[in-house]
Amino acid sequence: MAFTYLSNYPLEEARELYLNALNQAGLKPQVESVPTSSANGRVTAEAVYARICAPHYNACAMDGIALEASLTNGASETRPVTLLEGSFRWVNTGDPLPKDADCVVMVEDVIEAEGGVQLFGAATPWQHVRQIGEDIAAGDMVVPSFTQLRPSALGALLAAGVLEIPVIRKPVVGIIPTGNELVQPSSDPKQGDIIEFNSTIFSSMMQEWGCEAKVYPVAVDKPEVIISRLQGAIAECDMVLLNAGSSAGQKDYSVEAIQAVGSVVLHGVAIKPGKPTILGMTQKDGQVIPLIGLPGYPVSGILVLEQLIKPVVSLMSKRQEQEPEFVEAVVSRRLVSSLKYLEFIRARLGKVGGQVVAVPLNRGAGVVSSFVKADGIIHVPQNTEGYEAGEKVRVELLRPMEEIEQTLVITGSHDPLIDEAIDIMRRKWTDSFVASSHVGSMGGIMAVKRGEAHLGGVHLLDEASGGYNRSYVRKYIPEGGVRLLRCVQRSQGLMVARGNPLGIRGIEDLANLRYVNRQKGSGTRILLDYLLKQRSLDSKQIKGYEREELTHTAVAAAVAAGTADAGMGILAAARIYDLEFIPICEEEYDLLIAEESLNNPQFQRFMQALQSEELKQRLEAMGGYKLDRPGEMIEL
Amino acid sequence: MAFTYLSNYPLEEARELYLNALNQAGLKPQVESVPTSSANGRVTAEAVYARICAPHYNACAMDGIALEASLTNGASETRPVTLLEGSFRWVNTGDPLPKDADCVVMVEDVIEAEGGVQLFGAATPWQHVRQIGEDIAAGDMVVPSFTQLRPSALGALLAAGVLEIPVIRKPVVGIIPTGNELVQPSSDPKQGDIIEFNSTIFSSMMQEWGCEAKVYPVAVDKPEVIISRLQGAIAECDMVLLNAGSSAGQKDYSVEAIQAVGSVVLHGVAIKPGKPTILGMTQKDGQVIPLIGLPGYPVSGILVLEQLIKPVVSLMSKRQEQEPEFVEAVVSRRLVSSLKYLEFIRARLGKVGGQVVAVPLNRGAGVVSSFVKADGIIHVPQNTEGYEAGEKVRVELLRPMEEIEQTLVITGSHDPLIDEAIDIMRRKWTDSFVASSHVGSMGGIMAVKRGEAHLGGVHLLDEASGGYNRSYVRKYIPEGGVRLLRCVQRSQGLMVARGNPLGIRGIEDLANLRYVNRQKGSGTRILLDYLLKQRSLDSKQIKGYEREELTHTAVAAAVAAGTADAGMGILAAARIYDLEFIPICEEEYDLLIAEESLNNPQFQRFMQALQSEELKQRLEAMGGYKLDRPGEMIEL
Repeated sequence: MAFTYLSNYPLEEARELYLNALNQAGLKPQVESVPTSSANGRVTAEAVYARICAPHYNACAMDGIALEASLTNGASETRPVTLLEGSFRWVNTGDPLPKDADCVVMVEDVIEAEGGVQLFGAATPWQHVRQIGEDIAAGDMVVPSFTQLRPSALGALLAAGVLEIPVIRKPVVGIIPTGNELVQPSSDPKQGDIIEFNSTIFSSMMQEWGCEAKVYPVAVDKPEVIISRLQGAIAECDMVLLNAGSSAGQKDYSVEAIQAVGSVVLHGVAIKPGKPTILGMTQKDGQVIPLIGLPGYPVSGILVLEQLIKPVVSLMSKRQEQEPEFVEAVVSRRLVSSLKYLEFIRARLGKVGGQVVAVPLNRGAGVVSSFVKADGIIHVPQNTEGYEAGEKVRVELLRPMEEIEQTLVITGSHDPLIDEAIDIMRRKWTDSFVASSHVGSMGGIMAVKRGEAHLGGVHLLDEASGGYNRSYVRKYIPEGGVRLLRCVQRSQGLMVARGNPLGIRGIEDLANLRYVNRQKGSGTRILLDYLLKQRSLDSKQIKGYEREELTHTAVAAAVAAGTADAGMGILAAARIYDLEFIPICEEEYDLLIAEESLNNPQFQRFMQALQSEELKQRLEAMGGYKLDRPGEMIEL
Repeated sequence: MAFTYLSNYPLEEARELYLNALNQAGLKPQVESVPTSSANGRVTAEAVYARICAPHYNACAMDGIALEASLTNGASETRPVTLLEGSFRWVNTGDPLPKDADCVVMVEDVIEAEGGVQLFGAATPWQHVRQIGEDIAAGDMVVPSFTQLRPSALGALLAAGVLEIPVIRKPVVGIIPTGNELVQPSSDPKQGDIIEFNSTIFSSMMQEWGCEAKVYPVAVDKPEVIISRLQGAIAECDMVLLNAGSSAGQKDYSVEAIQAVGSVVLHGVAIKPGKPTILGMTQKDGQVIPLIGLPGYPVSGILVLEQLIKPVVSLMSKRQEQEPEFVEAVVSRRLVSSLKYLEFIRARLGKVGGQVVAVPLNRGAGVVSSFVKADGIIHVPQNTEGYEAGEKVRVELLRPMEEIEQTLVITGSHDPLIDEAIDIMRRKWTDSFVASSHVGSMGGIMAVKRGEAHLGGVHLLDEASGGYNRSYVRKYIPEGGVRLLRCVQRSQGLMVARGNPLGIRGIEDLANLRYVNRQKGSGTRILLDYLLKQRSLDSKQIKGYEREELTHTAVAAAVAAGTADAGMGILAAARIYDLEFIPICEEEYDLLIAEESLNNPQFQRFMQALQSEELKQRLEAMGGYKLDRPGEMIEL
């Protein structure tokens, strides 16, 4: 099934082909007239000329007297000139200059005298007069075509008597979600329901690009329903996005529907994710309406909009597109990519020890949270097999580089307290930037060692000594240059269903249950392995030993959903899911930091948050934590 | 009068003093709850946690069969495993994983066989399953406090079952215009009317900064009226701007009004323009309301908002302020500044021949068009007397540097055809950037010579030869490296009132009339001087000889308003104002360009516009132009 009928146009080619097709068909921006006072951010549809002058009359620019300058010829400190009433006029700032006057003398320089005033200096013609048209003359072009209006331009236009402006009408983009399983966002969906959030993402993007978005009700997977919905949207919109069903499978009706109401320019682009994209169009009363079939996964949809549809919107809205900014970064781990596609891989970026490091995030096209965490997108060109760890990659920035350069990069073991400390930091200093990700304790040690993170959370039990963390740091970073800082003591245990229906007492009861494990290199997995070994249990006896989750909460979620009988994790995670918690041990969760990062201002804020009363209270509410002299250095 | 009672706080000090005062009084952002689907761009008021997992169930990630992986142990190409009906279930992508299954085998790998299916490979547990919580687990922090929400975050929040979000309520900023002469924008104002456009500028700025703006009707200059309007605004708003009357003159009631309803933190800041600024506050039900008295001139108001009020808005909105970007530039002419103030001078910026040049614009605080033209603001620090031409200055960017680097800088003599050509360029290529300014023909030659402009319009009559331009270029740029290009022939003449009531026939009749002249160095003024000399007339005989305007249209405006009887200019300007035109001569308006700019892509576009049929038609409509082989090189 699937991609049999899809073409595989390289991205640039697809973009050019589509834009040319739209241009040739006559795609044009639509025009409307709006009051100048509410035109901020809008784009002029034509050049706008001043209707009146600004100032619109010769205006006195000072309080004082208006007069003909020649009357003051020869006046000086020693030989003042006396002006009689009638030869001058008292004026205030903003008053029109009287007809026979050609200058203003300010009140401070005017001495009242009998029958008139005395001046001790000569005036020059046109002094202290704002001449008509000095700022803008009627007939002057105030702004040319296709100019995005800013506040000062609105001021200038109003000063120039322009009360209405022809602007590009915001393109109305219709968004039609399709799919039998789609349900409106809910905090209590049924199994099998797919929460329809793509429309919110896509409509927000369209609004950011200067469009109006119109989201239609979900259409079920029937060609006739989709076609009729499409027809309705074409009648009301300037562009239509159909989501999803853009592939070539049996239940993918987008191509058929677009062909029924218009034509397909191309179907299938050599990008990943995003391949099953349909670029089409139709006409309405001579107006060209782009019709787009977007893939269903949110990440694919976002990328296709950014890469292919943004330039179309720009053609329609005449807004100046901000060119994406790229940066060169070192990739933290091996990336394998297909030769067939230009691949987009979301990544965390951080500047640690002078180099910009890109840490690839989950590549799943459904993993929308990866876009929330991403600072950039690695572009792996078509015909490239990928990169080895440490190679340079080209990354499109999603956040300003300045911000990334200031960002504190935390990685390693997952604990919700890290998120809580970040939140406390941000509440105190709004300009706090922290990027945290979960790669397990061993991953944290290696990331700090390799200069990919400033800070790593670790909780690694040394089987020999029974102590935590120190021996690992000594072993894996023998070269030193790092510090280990106390963070927190926390309760690890088994999480099981409330009431403990299977009567689990501890590790010894795990055999033949459905277990859910953590990933390799995580402290929790190392702890399990140690406990199994102590009890001479073989991991093969643990059903689900190979089922891996990346966080305590994800393990708890699996148990809470009944898809596992037990998993190991911290008390805080068990509490969130209202699970029974069987304590196993108290462990030390510490922080590893490169010495060169100790002066990083964001790290110092993080330490303050860690030592704050607020964090103590939050951890108490979460349960299972002991904060004892956090931030204190541990002798290595 | 005036600034007697004003303090003179340095800008940084004033900002800190005010922010501290507001913080100590307890200025806090206000909070409201909004639907997630419409929260794009809003800022979270607290950390937001996932309510459900995403995915919220174990979901099949492929069409195929769901089964227990262990049933396939040992399956291979040569030894397939047969599964009987009942031991597996057919599933579609997105279906919930059946209770006893732990993996999915895709349909392409499933061979139907009698009584069931055959598999030619072993499945691994949890393959092709999107596990519950794989993206986000319930209880995870999705976004921390004070985070500006972007489209993907909304998607993640909806996927996590969060349907409403507590966000910072947009601060409501009340704007109260005051002044007896203020009138609503009009295309036909009376003399003395001041068009009230500041409120549009200020409210648009507030909206750009994430606020809601509420503009009140104009208040007349009476303390009791202003106080009562202020009280009304305080009741409805989170911050109030009072404009103008912020100085210490007799009719400046802002201080009195703010003191009546709250307190003044400081009055008077050492900046220019913008000195008479009032920073105050009051309380409403325990909420701190900043009260600001803004100076009346639009340029002053804009600068005060940018420099002092933006950080206050940021405190209230918790939006991350973009730090202003600065660039070092060479200033094109001498700038004198007062030691007492930090002075802000708007400037055009251009990159010509490798260096960034700042060309100061009109410093008038009322000249709002200068903000439309400005690319940056030169900061002249307090205690600095100014700069000599060619010195380096620090410029705050108002447009991205990339755009400035691409901008074609045109200067020299004014002709509306330049604006028309720019408009044609922009209509053809939306990413066309041109900065044009008027400094007269001689100014244009000097700007191109000094590398401050790419291109300059010149029309300079050589008294000796009667020819145009060539001898000036040879004389002032003997070093060469420039080209002179044909542009247009145009009719110069005297503009007089319709019907020519004074019966003016030509230059010989100018004595004792009210003339309006052009600035020194402009080709039109040089032409007048030549014509006067020819006729042995003395410029002293021309009343208004020293009255200078910078453009043809400004001269026409003066004549049209009846404040001058005659002025010299081009036919196109006379037509706009419906003036009588007495032709004097046909002159050659050419373009001077540095050879190194000939390959500038924006210049090449400009040439295309100059040679376009569209420009020809526009010039025909304007009248008085002859386009003959425009762009052709003139032998120097």
